[in-house]
Amino acid sequence: MYKIVLLRHGESTWNKENRFTGWTDVDLTEKGNQEAVAAGELLREEGYAFDVAFTSVLKRANKTLNIVLEKLDALWLPVEHSWRLNERHYGALQGLNKAETAAKYGDEQVLIWRRSYDTPPPALDDGDERLTPDDPRYAALPADRFPRTECLKDTVARVVPYWETVIVPRILAGDRILIAAHGNSIRALIKYLDGVSDADIVGLNIPTAQPLVYELDENCQPIKHYYLADEDTIKAAEAAVAGQGKAKA
Amino acid sequence: MYKIVLLRHGESTWNKENRFTGWTDVDLTEKGNQEAVAAGELLREEGYAFDVAFTSVLKRANKTLNIVLEKLDALWLPVEHSWRLNERHYGALQGLNKAETAAKYGDEQVLIWRRSYDTPPPALDDGDERLTPDDPRYAALPADRFPRTECLKDTVARVVPYWETVIVPRILAGDRILIAAHGNSIRALIKYLDGVSDADIVGLNIPTAQPLVYELDENCQPIKHYYLADEDTIKAAEAAVAGQGKAKA
Repeated sequence: MYKIVLLRHGESTWNKENRFTGWTDVDLTEKGNQEAVAAGELLREEGYAFDVAFTSVLKRANKTLNIVLEKLDALWLPVEHSWRLNERHYGALQGLNKAETAAKYGDEQVLIWRRSYDTPPPALDDGDERLTPDDPRYAALPADRFPRTECLKDTVARVVPYWETVIVPRILAGDRILIAAHGNSIRALIKYLDGVSDADIVGLNIPTAQPLVYELDENCQPIKHYYLADEDTIKAAEAAVAGQGKAKA
Repeated sequence: MYKIVLLRHGESTWNKENRFTGWTDVDLTEKGNQEAVAAGELLREEGYAFDVAFTSVLKRANKTLNIVLEKLDALWLPVEHSWRLNERHYGALQGLNKAETAAKYGDEQVLIWRRSYDTPPPALDDGDERLTPDDPRYAALPADRFPRTECLKDTVARVVPYWETVIVPRILAGDRILIAAHGNSIRALIKYLDGVSDADIVGLNIPTAQPLVYELDENCQPIKHYYLADEDTIKAAEAAVAGQGKAKA
């Protein structure tokens, strides 16, 4: 009945440096730009068009979206931005790379934070410069609810209400939807849509800038999903993402 | 009381080729991109920030806006797109350059179309490929009102209702406004705001990608206006625009 497209942003500077990014507003790399161009070209070749796009308030997703829209000749498209589509907030780990994190907290603890559905990393303290509720892009978020850390369960808890109250009504109204977001906000949505278990969702890897199509029935329940790119491309991209969290040699 | 910024898009490919553009959706040139970057940097240096931006459904304005927003670290900003902010529709002249136009219609007639406030160029005929009411970006415009040509008076007649019903309420609500549009939609707005005469408005040149600030009183009536760039820069830019319509040697 309905078809929507989910898109994780292209490679960011901190993806490349193997740092925990979260809500840090880092830019795309040149490779990330090129990935977004390729995503836009693939969508165009496959005949996709959209009526509205949803994205986060972080530039790596916003720029990926703009590059895709330009390729689709649709820079005029209405775009809704929401912090609810932001990446999972990574608390006090934001800015640290894997080696620094392991040195500070120990390998075992880091594995728990990365693999657990409901154990958040350490929270930001009062006065931490990464705690920015006054940033105007968060004006719609009460200051005392600005996250200091999130586990994936927390991300699910803020993505799902946005899906249900803002996106689903537009789908039911017949609008063709593109969501340009982040690895964990997309994971959160997929967990909800497909009823993925708490254990399985953390093992699901979302490749950067690969259009993921969900076909939904008349109740916005998923019928099936697939990447637009061929299987080998997706397997290689998923493997690259799965390797990102690992310490480099 | 209030301060808004008007911005004409950077140089387009057809500005460069000296063609009548109108609603043709041409891209920015590399120079146009650079002009937009400079506009964004100037606004940032001068401490400007915005709460919402308004633009047309044409990519040269949309891209100029996106480049400026990126420089302001505000790609997350809400943006409203409307055909009402489009360039003046140039009818059957769209696509022709000055020399072709003079050869087809005569110098004197061309001067009338360029200098007259209320004489439109020849209209598009039924079946003209430039008549595209089915383009989804014009879904909100009834097909029988899709313009076949416009004089500047017609442009004023569709810009002013958008200003009054969409933009003014946002200004009164305290939102800081950026309007990224076109030479003639900006002229149309200025004519209305400043009560410029029909004769004088056609001689007013809007330089590309130069932020123009209007300070408005509590009734959204203009108090004063000024370009952010220095006077010499603006004079040179205005002269370049004034020369654009002239036949090249």
